[in-house]
Amino acid sequence: MRILVTGAAGFLGSHLCDRLLTDGHEVIGMDNFITGSPDNIAHLADNESFSFYKRDVSNYIFVPGKVDAILHFASPASPNPQSKAGYFNLPIQTMKAGALGTHNCLGIARRESSRFLLASTSEIYGDPEIHPQSESYPGNVDPIGERAVYDEAKRFAESLTMAYHRFHGVNTSIVRIFNTYGPRMDLEDGRALPNLLKQALLGQPLTVYGDGSQTRSFCFVDDLIDGIVRLLYSEEHFPVNIGNPIEMSILQFAEAINKIVGNKAGIVFEENSRSVRDPQRRQPDITRAREILGWEPKIDLEEGIRRTVPFFKQKLGLA
Amino acid sequence: MRILVTGAAGFLGSHLCDRLLTDGHEVIGMDNFITGSPDNIAHLADNESFSFYKRDVSNYIFVPGKVDAILHFASPASPNPQSKAGYFNLPIQTMKAGALGTHNCLGIARRESSRFLLASTSEIYGDPEIHPQSESYPGNVDPIGERAVYDEAKRFAESLTMAYHRFHGVNTSIVRIFNTYGPRMDLEDGRALPNLLKQALLGQPLTVYGDGSQTRSFCFVDDLIDGIVRLLYSEEHFPVNIGNPIEMSILQFAEAINKIVGNKAGIVFEENSRSVRDPQRRQPDITRAREILGWEPKIDLEEGIRRTVPFFKQKLGLA
Repeated sequence: MRILVTGAAGFLGSHLCDRLLTDGHEVIGMDNFITGSPDNIAHLADNESFSFYKRDVSNYIFVPGKVDAILHFASPASPNPQSKAGYFNLPIQTMKAGALGTHNCLGIARRESSRFLLASTSEIYGDPEIHPQSESYPGNVDPIGERAVYDEAKRFAESLTMAYHRFHGVNTSIVRIFNTYGPRMDLEDGRALPNLLKQALLGQPLTVYGDGSQTRSFCFVDDLIDGIVRLLYSEEHFPVNIGNPIEMSILQFAEAINKIVGNKAGIVFEENSRSVRDPQRRQPDITRAREILGWEPKIDLEEGIRRTVPFFKQKLGLA
Repeated sequence: MRILVTGAAGFLGSHLCDRLLTDGHEVIGMDNFITGSPDNIAHLADNESFSFYKRDVSNYIFVPGKVDAILHFASPASPNPQSKAGYFNLPIQTMKAGALGTHNCLGIARRESSRFLLASTSEIYGDPEIHPQSESYPGNVDPIGERAVYDEAKRFAESLTMAYHRFHGVNTSIVRIFNTYGPRMDLEDGRALPNLLKQALLGQPLTVYGDGSQTRSFCFVDDLIDGIVRLLYSEEHFPVNIGNPIEMSILQFAEAINKIVGNKAGIVFEENSRSVRDPQRRQPDITRAREILGWEPKIDLEEGIRRTVPFFKQKLGLA
């Protein structure tokens, strides 16, 4: 297949390109480098099956020739209020990537009769009142909250995707991505795992906010990409959660990371003010992924962390 | 002020133009007549304070000269699956009006330092789990449901509006409009009140679905427009519910309408299948409108219906 990947220079987009190239496809990458990095696709420079266009997908986009599939992964995605690449600091761009970007991609998919896959997110569930979250849960998102620039952009993108499927018969699919980690992730993305791993590798005590009882589920990137590619190759149109259902408290994560990395500096507890807007729990129900795609994560936390450490060390200047 | 009204040929947009002209403003109307009608603004043809551009606000729009305020009312709004003008049959246009249309309007508001007012809706609350709905209720909307093309378009529009306020300092406001009735409404909009009033004027028995215990709150259009204009003139930035908090069952509505109109044909009950997607209850908490705007509805159902009957009779060829 000839496949367009938007956000190709991002954490997930670049892994997706790698996997699709490995599977024998021709890949056209697109990214405007607002949050993605040329470093993430530098290794593809001499791959003749890979081409790249520096474009803002929220503007008009044009791809010459046939497009068999489009994977729309372009969007700021970091919830870190301090990060310049986070959606708090790129609110308009985030909303445009979800609305105008999705609209542009769906226009191509309609014209080219392409398979379309939208990268949605567990953030559409907001601060969920039920656990785990299945795809039928409508979510708990305040449309005027500060996080809404990301959450509502993705909810809108899902609605528009379904509208193109129902009204124009476009062959669409939607993946709801839960927390993911691995090489090429943004060390400053503000999520718990990179923060803790960074501190552990620097030999610092790990900072846990509140009592550490809030839980997270983290999926290693190779597992996630495998689920996404299975969805791409399937004929499913309704949203599918892809993520690791193993829920751990932040405190358990911190202890595990210290053990895996061999950090002796321990853990310090701090006031919870910083993460006041963060959901307390988020955990995927992956029943649909199991049944429809035959997918479940295979890489446990220890193995995933081991595979992630070299990238973190390099970024931290410890390699 | 010099005020741009999108959706000016719609039910609410045209009443808004009338009121703003009465208040002494210059009004620039815009509409693409997908769901609005030239009939609704025909009476303004020789009003020198009113000008009109036939435009799709989801495309690029340009207004020559200073714009002091923008009221974005352009959108399909009828939930009637059978209506050609309803959002079920105009899903992409509906989503574009909410996203691209709002984005275009906010661009002008930012450039011109205009006051911006977004016409949002009680539909952002979806099928609510609490009653009445205050502005802090995040809603219960399934982003991939068939109604979502309207609900998520408006939720997106709210998020984008708040982002322009927070990030670009645009002077924005958001009104959440509940069910409204009055002259110029679409007789085929699929809501309970016009359906019942139409049958009553034709001397037919009124059709009540299910047992008629599901409730609605209907606000007369003049009351609603007064609330919107008060919000426009205020300095409020957060959403304000405008609607009639008097909740009545559909059965009570039917009985009241028969009485007011003098219809002796009674009521028939039918299976509920038709309205299976309709929320069972929707009622505004107007505490904020009362406190911030000093507003509450003044026109009771009997008076509102009397003022609406001549328009319905004319449309039904009974005048």
